[in-house]
Amino acid sequence: MKTIFSELHSLQSVETEFYRGKWVDAFEIPRRAELVLAQIERAGLGPVVAPDSFDLAPVLAVHDRDFVRFLETAWQAWSAEVGPIPAYPNIWPPRRSRMIPTRRPGAELGRYAVDMSSPVLEGTWAAARAAVDCALTGARLIDAGEGAAFALCRPPGHHAGRDYFGGYCFLNNAAIAAQYFRDSGARRVAVLDIDYHHGNGTQDIFYDRADVLTVSIHGDPVQEYPYYIGFADETGEGAGAGCNLNLPLPWGADFTAWSAELGKGLERIAAFAPDRLVVSLGVDTFEEDPISHFRLRSADYPQIGRRIGELGLPTLFVMEGGYAIEAIGVNAVAVLSGFESAGAGLPRHLNR
Amino acid sequence: MKTIFSELHSLQSVETEFYRGKWVDAFEIPRRAELVLAQIERAGLGPVVAPDSFDLAPVLAVHDRDFVRFLETAWQAWSAEVGPIPAYPNIWPPRRSRMIPTRRPGAELGRYAVDMSSPVLEGTWAAARAAVDCALTGARLIDAGEGAAFALCRPPGHHAGRDYFGGYCFLNNAAIAAQYFRDSGARRVAVLDIDYHHGNGTQDIFYDRADVLTVSIHGDPVQEYPYYIGFADETGEGAGAGCNLNLPLPWGADFTAWSAELGKGLERIAAFAPDRLVVSLGVDTFEEDPISHFRLRSADYPQIGRRIGELGLPTLFVMEGGYAIEAIGVNAVAVLSGFESAGAGLPRHLNR
Ligand SMILES: [Zn+2]
Ligand SMILES: [Zn+2]
Repeated sequence: MKTIFSELHSLQSVETEFYRGKWVDAFEIPRRAELVLAQIERAGLGPVVAPDSFDLAPVLAVHDRDFVRFLETAWQAWSAEVGPIPAYPNIWPPRRSRMIPTRRPGAELGRYAVDMSSPVLEGTWAAARAAVDCALTGARLIDAGEGAAFALCRPPGHHAGRDYFGGYCFLNNAAIAAQYFRDSGARRVAVLDIDYHHGNGTQDIFYDRADVLTVSIHGDPVQEYPYYIGFADETGEGAGAGCNLNLPLPWGADFTAWSAELGKGLERIAAFAPDRLVVSLGVDTFEEDPISHFRLRSADYPQIGRRIGELGLPTLFVMEGGYAIEAIGVNAVAVLSGFESAGAGLPRHLNR
Repeated sequence: MKTIFSELHSLQSVETEFYRGKWVDAFEIPRRAELVLAQIERAGLGPVVAPDSFDLAPVLAVHDRDFVRFLETAWQAWSAEVGPIPAYPNIWPPRRSRMIPTRRPGAELGRYAVDMSSPVLEGTWAAARAAVDCALTGARLIDAGEGAAFALCRPPGHHAGRDYFGGYCFLNNAAIAAQYFRDSGARRVAVLDIDYHHGNGTQDIFYDRADVLTVSIHGDPVQEYPYYIGFADETGEGAGAGCNLNLPLPWGADFTAWSAELGKGLERIAAFAPDRLVVSLGVDTFEEDPISHFRLRSADYPQIGRRIGELGLPTLFVMEGGYAIEAIGVNAVAVLSGFESAGAGLPRHLNR
């Protein structure tokens, strides 16, 4: 399958992040994407192509306009007031406060950010837009007949909600691509999030919709980021009732346990009979991941890809997390190769 | 007047704070209280006494029980998981997430904290409780016949709401004292907040109540902490409609402008005819304050005290902010001395 990749990802780069009360070496670094790219080439997965440029319409189809405008201008406002240093919130809105706009970028950051892990930098907007372009280009390739594509997005996206960002994510690449599929004619789209962390942003965006099924297998939010959200009883609301499936697992879950949840997710997706599948591909489920607590091994990832491939759906993979640098490329590409080994991912005129 | 002071305040002490995107020397430091204390002695304001010990009932009369329990146990939970370093949140709840309790102290911190300026330390709970004891002891002295008292509280309190903390504040000393007055027989209590920053916590606690009038003169929240809250159109709700008065002023306001707002506040308080007055006494309105933007001068503070004294009300002063270290003692004590110069603050049997 084709990989869509932009060098602009490297504009989102910090040396350190504030993690559990102190500054540590950053986990979400440009080298993550570089190592995945290197493994794609090493494994001969397929051509790597640059993204097309898209306008903001697909972004605004899932994100709040004020939020998008904020992200676009946040660096300018912050650096004008504070100087050219990474932008972090000054405050988060106290409960029961109204959300009246302020004139201070540090307060506006707090309105839209949910943590300290996602500073806005000079190149954040360009990097986030490029990641979206990768996802949209992948979606366009699939609409044009490719059976699968891999959007090697960075920064990741699945923690970004309708009007908030955090968890290294700014714009929700996977959700934007899913919506793009809908707008280009797919009747139903499913998003399967296999990142270690709950895809809270994706859930948030589609929570009241019946046309997009969201499924996430992840660390139980009572003990794992993003906390507060991702519980099994969150099943959608309004028209979307029944169209969100959360499959949380406790710390220490191994592949046997994980795999059983994957089975439930795939079954639900098959029953939903979508025209397109978007996979939020995180490999922080890996046993050596420094910030995660599942116990998947490298040998498990091909099977994951194969089982997803057995759905036989046109599938867009979108890169999310994975912080065990040494293994991120091998594990991510193993999923993609496994997918292809199922006979999936061929151009559709060959595959039918 | 008597000053109530506890050495335990010094247990809340950090070297640095995260301010506008970087770590700087902390503003809210133990030396603040020490300098006020020294000036009280130098000026001969009156005796300094230790607080009585109170149980948690007065705290729970204004703060949410889960929040209080959290604060009491936060250090233990955090240090057990992360180690003996200052406790900061990992995340703040994304919008539309439910508030389901988690098992991670960094997530619970995000549930209850609103910023990065108020880390929980080993001694935070003891310091916060001692500050409450100072405020309550002052209230008790007034109930026993003193015309005025000064609770030299540290950490300050007015940013702490029913179920959240931040802005250097953990428990709302002034609100707890105001409620104590109510519970000991006062029919109506007024709180006048003259700190540079909006007394959002106090407003939050009494917002729906007709028996406690809250008045705050402060930097306009469109440009100043705590942002989002403290606007002029927030006038109370339900039974409390009309019982909250916000008097925001823009950056650069001088004493002429400030004084006009004080006049409005005092007029409203006089019309409310409270039995007791609590003054949240911050002196970060001072022109040299490093984090504030009003232009009051040291010569202005005696007048403020005098005008408050002219209300002729039994008055509890509760220390809040003020970060121009050199001047904090002079300015705070000037308010208290000014109050006494109005003939107020004498024991009530002498004053009638
Ligand atoms: Zn993740
Ligand atoms: Zn203040």
